[in-house]
Amino acid sequence: MNEIPYKILLSESEIPRAWYNLRADMKNKPAPLMNPATHRPMTAEELAPVFCEELIAQELDDTTPYIEIPDEILGYYKMYRPSPLMRAYRLEEALQTPAKIYYKFEGNNTSGSHKLNSAIAQAYYAKKQGLKGVTTETGAGQWGTALSMACSYFDLDCKVYMVKVSYEQKPFRREVMRTYGAAVTPSPSEDTAVGRKILAEHPGTTGSLGCAISEAVEVSTSNPGYRYVLGSVLNQVLLHQSIIGLETKAALDKYGIRPDILIGCAGGGSNLGGLISPFMGEKLRGEADYRIIAVEPASCPSFTRGRFAYDFCDTGMICPLAKMYTLGAGFIPAPNHAGGLRFHGMSPTLSQLYHDGLMEARAVPQNAVFEAAEQFARIEGILPAPESSHAIRVAIDEAVRCRETGEAKTIVFGLTGTGYFDMTAFEKFHAGLLDDSIPTDADLQIGFDQLPKVE
Amino acid sequence: MNEIPYKILLSESEIPRAWYNLRADMKNKPAPLMNPATHRPMTAEELAPVFCEELIAQELDDTTPYIEIPDEILGYYKMYRPSPLMRAYRLEEALQTPAKIYYKFEGNNTSGSHKLNSAIAQAYYAKKQGLKGVTTETGAGQWGTALSMACSYFDLDCKVYMVKVSYEQKPFRREVMRTYGAAVTPSPSEDTAVGRKILAEHPGTTGSLGCAISEAVEVSTSNPGYRYVLGSVLNQVLLHQSIIGLETKAALDKYGIRPDILIGCAGGGSNLGGLISPFMGEKLRGEADYRIIAVEPASCPSFTRGRFAYDFCDTGMICPLAKMYTLGAGFIPAPNHAGGLRFHGMSPTLSQLYHDGLMEARAVPQNAVFEAAEQFARIEGILPAPESSHAIRVAIDEAVRCRETGEAKTIVFGLTGTGYFDMTAFEKFHAGLLDDSIPTDADLQIGFDQLPKVE
Repeated sequence: MNEIPYKILLSESEIPRAWYNLRADMKNKPAPLMNPATHRPMTAEELAPVFCEELIAQELDDTTPYIEIPDEILGYYKMYRPSPLMRAYRLEEALQTPAKIYYKFEGNNTSGSHKLNSAIAQAYYAKKQGLKGVTTETGAGQWGTALSMACSYFDLDCKVYMVKVSYEQKPFRREVMRTYGAAVTPSPSEDTAVGRKILAEHPGTTGSLGCAISEAVEVSTSNPGYRYVLGSVLNQVLLHQSIIGLETKAALDKYGIRPDILIGCAGGGSNLGGLISPFMGEKLRGEADYRIIAVEPASCPSFTRGRFAYDFCDTGMICPLAKMYTLGAGFIPAPNHAGGLRFHGMSPTLSQLYHDGLMEARAVPQNAVFEAAEQFARIEGILPAPESSHAIRVAIDEAVRCRETGEAKTIVFGLTGTGYFDMTAFEKFHAGLLDDSIPTDADLQIGFDQLPKVE
Repeated sequence: MNEIPYKILLSESEIPRAWYNLRADMKNKPAPLMNPATHRPMTAEELAPVFCEELIAQELDDTTPYIEIPDEILGYYKMYRPSPLMRAYRLEEALQTPAKIYYKFEGNNTSGSHKLNSAIAQAYYAKKQGLKGVTTETGAGQWGTALSMACSYFDLDCKVYMVKVSYEQKPFRREVMRTYGAAVTPSPSEDTAVGRKILAEHPGTTGSLGCAISEAVEVSTSNPGYRYVLGSVLNQVLLHQSIIGLETKAALDKYGIRPDILIGCAGGGSNLGGLISPFMGEKLRGEADYRIIAVEPASCPSFTRGRFAYDFCDTGMICPLAKMYTLGAGFIPAPNHAGGLRFHGMSPTLSQLYHDGLMEARAVPQNAVFEAAEQFARIEGILPAPESSHAIRVAIDEAVRCRETGEAKTIVFGLTGTGYFDMTAFEKFHAGLLDDSIPTDADLQIGFDQLPKVE
């Protein structure tokens, strides 16, 4: 076995040719999306006004284990993939841990994160269907940027509803999207019925992801030739993001490395679901065992303090219901929360796996997250996104535990992206302006009380 | 010959083990740095209060062709190098050109540019000398960020004097440097005699690179255990940056590709000098011929409209004199200039090569630069730095010329970095607020009149 390099790189020809559909190996399938009016599973026909046809097929397919990646998508993947699997030699040394730490780095593309993997796929299928354009929401802006890039590749119109507080605090993200030709509107806006309704009820609102979703969905259904696309939560997104895990596994296999612990941050679950997919598949098939840890912010703790229930994905309550760990569609994290991962729910696939005891979850306070981010930056060089830094926090904690126990465990975590557009959050951290308050049980009860009643 | 991938990647073991010292192959050596008082070449002893010892040796060595890269530096290079040599298949297709376009992409590290290559080397030698810290200036912030990162690796104190206008307009760059532990001060400041003098003479000044250099040098010489480091212009920097060209050549050689045209943006010359070094070496030794084009902003046209003369590198006129193409140390580009590359002078090595007719230079207006940047981003995905976009502009122009003439030339350009911290400039471009005015001959004459009188 050769010495392991700092960066385990695959060649372009080693990019997986098919996505892995984890649901095919799940005995307990994720619950289907449900029509909020009839409380019956959504059919492809019912989804067709909102989503692209081929993406609906992928959303509903829980039996086909591998779905071929079209050549044209592969061609775009080759512009920035395979992404490197990094060996954190220097972090190990700094922590004086016997643990071996690896991270899959998805930030080396202009979107700054793994989101581009699904954006390219979704834009491709939209173009293939002959659509004029797509609509979406964005919070921190990673997904909106990724979709803007993908739409510029496929010459599709791109309308992004950006949570107002981010639109105002992150003018540079907005400008990046515009550089790629996207139309970016602060949400809530006067463009939509749902936006006008929310503005009337909450005149000073700075918006939420759930609200921006409602607006983007409304615009897609009221404009011929448009569909709505989403960067997380959905099964199709986890499918596309399986490329992260497949590459990670291929890179590890190349050097005969078997991970003990896999760690990923989790907001809607796109990165974590993608990273763990082939490993969870082995676990489901009884071929191997891994500890898998989802890390979420203590201020938006869907897994660790949420309910496993059918809920709306959007504040406007116009989307299908999804069965997931949720804090309620009405839940909005405290305004001081800087670390991303603000969605109230969680991927139905990951929710089912968590419910079945196949993975753990851990909630971490934000100052500890930014401390890990800064420590990592100074040692490993890469300035991580606040979201990714949740995974770094727990990876460091686990490595320190190994130092205490003397175990040389192999830890793999997902470094989903870079923090270049998050310097306002780092500035607050440096100034001591981040606080670690978490929602009280009473706060959470408000969201739970609004959960729809489904059998 | 295999099909050429989108990204020609070398392995970590293929990183060159030695820098190439272009000066060793130059018949007409770059003129020595000169003592501004005595008008005699600066000796190592005279330079020692300002620069690190080993870096002085590299600065003065114009005969040793290869200088070994210390293992510790190589170890840090391996965290982000080799950088990819990209084949711009999609740009070629969009331009419908028979030309083959490659770009060496140096932006995939948190400093966002090639500057890290020299920062790591300079910090290493400072640490090896037992210094406590280093001082430097930064304009757009790429160099300051790179040095902050390198100093965090080697546990060195890092004091950055940041041109005031950038400090105010680029708070995020400043915050990145602070994340890496650097002390960042807006220049001119009250910290230094030269800063206080400039503030007294020009109370409202927003600073200049030349002024920030003066402050950083003063602080280095008045604090025991500190030295001054510089990210461009100097011979030592071009030496370190030769890694760019050596990797480029190795990647091209792997596929038997011989470039016809090499293009790089040029401010102080660090990227261009590094990129072209092995190719220029072949040219100097009569082994091959290449067209080499330096691209500079029309608003700061050192090569195309400057004088080849001894001049100060800094506004405070406390640094040694360098013989270079210069607009005069008193020249400051118009405030509307957004594209970086603002230094009044140019690398003495490149200046000599240009003077000897071994390379061309072209000045481009800034709107054309940002148009190229946006076109490139939409097609190739990567959002380029305004600096790098000067090279993109000319690469596209040359590729379009190939379409007209039907010549299938091979064009290689340096994509020095990403524009993630330059969105204010892109916003101005989108809003039509960039103007293409250039200095008049009378404007330039003011700078020329201040040139020091040397034989």
